[in-house]
Amino acid sequence: MTKRLGKQTLYLPSAPAVVGYAAVVGKKEGEGPLKERFDYIAEDSYFGEKSWEKAESHMLKQCFSIACDKGGLPPSSLQYILAGDLLNQCVSSSFAMRDTEIPYLGLYGACSTMAESLSLGALLLDGGFAERVCALTGSHFCSAERQYRFPLEYGGQRTPSSQWTVTGAGAVILAPAGGVVRITHVTHGKIIDAGIKDPSNMGSAMAPAAFDTIRTHFRDTGRTPEDYDAIVTGDLGALGHDILQALFRSDGVELGARYMDCGVLIYDLAAQEVGAGGSGCGCCASVLGGHILRAMEDGVWNRVLFAATGALMSPTSSQQGESIPGICHAIVLERSVSSGNLG
Amino acid sequence: MTKRLGKQTLYLPSAPAVVGYAAVVGKKEGEGPLKERFDYIAEDSYFGEKSWEKAESHMLKQCFSIACDKGGLPPSSLQYILAGDLLNQCVSSSFAMRDTEIPYLGLYGACSTMAESLSLGALLLDGGFAERVCALTGSHFCSAERQYRFPLEYGGQRTPSSQWTVTGAGAVILAPAGGVVRITHVTHGKIIDAGIKDPSNMGSAMAPAAFDTIRTHFRDTGRTPEDYDAIVTGDLGALGHDILQALFRSDGVELGARYMDCGVLIYDLAAQEVGAGGSGCGCCASVLGGHILRAMEDGVWNRVLFAATGALMSPTSSQQGESIPGICHAIVLERSVSSGNLG
Repeated sequence: MTKRLGKQTLYLPSAPAVVGYAAVVGKKEGEGPLKERFDYIAEDSYFGEKSWEKAESHMLKQCFSIACDKGGLPPSSLQYILAGDLLNQCVSSSFAMRDTEIPYLGLYGACSTMAESLSLGALLLDGGFAERVCALTGSHFCSAERQYRFPLEYGGQRTPSSQWTVTGAGAVILAPAGGVVRITHVTHGKIIDAGIKDPSNMGSAMAPAAFDTIRTHFRDTGRTPEDYDAIVTGDLGALGHDILQALFRSDGVELGARYMDCGVLIYDLAAQEVGAGGSGCGCCASVLGGHILRAMEDGVWNRVLFAATGALMSPTSSQQGESIPGICHAIVLERSVSSGNLG
Repeated sequence: MTKRLGKQTLYLPSAPAVVGYAAVVGKKEGEGPLKERFDYIAEDSYFGEKSWEKAESHMLKQCFSIACDKGGLPPSSLQYILAGDLLNQCVSSSFAMRDTEIPYLGLYGACSTMAESLSLGALLLDGGFAERVCALTGSHFCSAERQYRFPLEYGGQRTPSSQWTVTGAGAVILAPAGGVVRITHVTHGKIIDAGIKDPSNMGSAMAPAAFDTIRTHFRDTGRTPEDYDAIVTGDLGALGHDILQALFRSDGVELGARYMDCGVLIYDLAAQEVGAGGSGCGCCASVLGGHILRAMEDGVWNRVLFAATGALMSPTSSQQGESIPGICHAIVLERSVSSGNLG
């Protein structure tokens, strides 16, 4: 039996359910507009560890643990962890999960990792391969900054188009049933390279990938933006948000106020000096695990299109003059009890 | 319907078939014992490109293209590419595949990536999510050496336990039917950290992970080593090979001559000055796509357990005093026409 719709969308007949979720963030994120939505806000950027890489790992571990607690599930009941991060060789995830004794699938989707891990987790359930899986990712401003840009001590200036790597993590646990929010569709994206070469302008590099995946999703499902209460990209930032809106407009489609970006939601852009907004695996992961899933449980939104974007470059590829390929994976989240006015 | 056997093994009722495969290697690998088995041997370590990172990407692209050709499948008929590599942010894979217009899932399993990508590809088929997928990975000695160890110009000495990163790539295309070799079972591994801290002794760090996954596979399926014509790990090297054999022996299990390691198979260890043997994503990928699948098609082996191992560390984690976590994912490959004497 095929579960394919159109060109690249999957329909999941079993609609795997979200049975546990959590978000852990740093101090700056805990001072932003979503401060009431996170499970834990760390005052110490080191999370009590001796390096920022270990801090990032600590944060992921903590987030995983809170998600298990909130779902009332012991870690030993999980059959898979799907995780990845921005550090070279994805070490913050692998070190965070090394003591769990749970089969581990390492992913690299850059800032799209939350959607990649969650969507693959949903497929593992829908395909009959597992009954409890956890999708996990995060990022840390300090470890990312020194790996991708400059040593923090250098105090380099930032361009207005640059984004601020979120210190944050998100974890989501799926099971065949039991949660209010379910995953009904997945549209995995292809790599889109629009030729942008400026690593301080990720929003412009990734917006074409978001456009491609979301437009394909609409075509494959026959849906329009009006079928969704919220369409949330992550993390295009303010600039990428406007580019995506303009791309759809030139295609005759109005996304409207239901369209938001996690990089814009997580900070007060006017007051927090974060350039064009948040970025990093932890941005849309913490907004999903903190804000979006809560809003759905509370009945604020019934159907959400969560579309996480990633930039598949490295400092080396940029130094060698390469452009920045983007990718976007989209997931449909649906509240089990439909409000009736949704298509 | 659950497809789980025992603790962590999956049984794939549809047994996805290998319909195309290829291996591309560098000059040194092309001078080793498997030289007749590869589809292409590059004389130029730059593959005609300007940097080793671009060379690695070029090699992956070429390998992908040969696998499509051999399978008689245009790339546009593929619905997923699952790929990853050892470079920071897995750029050789993403840049190699950026023009394909095929939905892309980026993975990071270090040197276990071939088994991770191929197994997840098999699940996508068995779950009804896709009908044509390609699993792809590779590594390049020169790009790995300068990223993980020292600049090549430095000419650093190597310890006997160190392994030699293979310049090589492997690609495998799966479809619901049509090939001689099929995937019947998958055992995904958990992270095992035995406390080894020497990055020049990966075999010792990864052997306990291979032991854990393969032993679990035997327990889950009720099988013994005798049920397999070949059990092939990748890439423990000579030292890790002997450690794995000893671990099983202390458990009362004799792996016998059917047990081989890709890192040992690919080089002439006595003559080629490669320390304990080959390593890198491209090692077991090129041995699978060059040697193992050919041997099965030729009827030399009917049932093979392919168990790829990875070390989930980074230069930064080692610099910070961390030990090296290992992982191993195993796949059962079976020739459709059974010889009758296999259990």
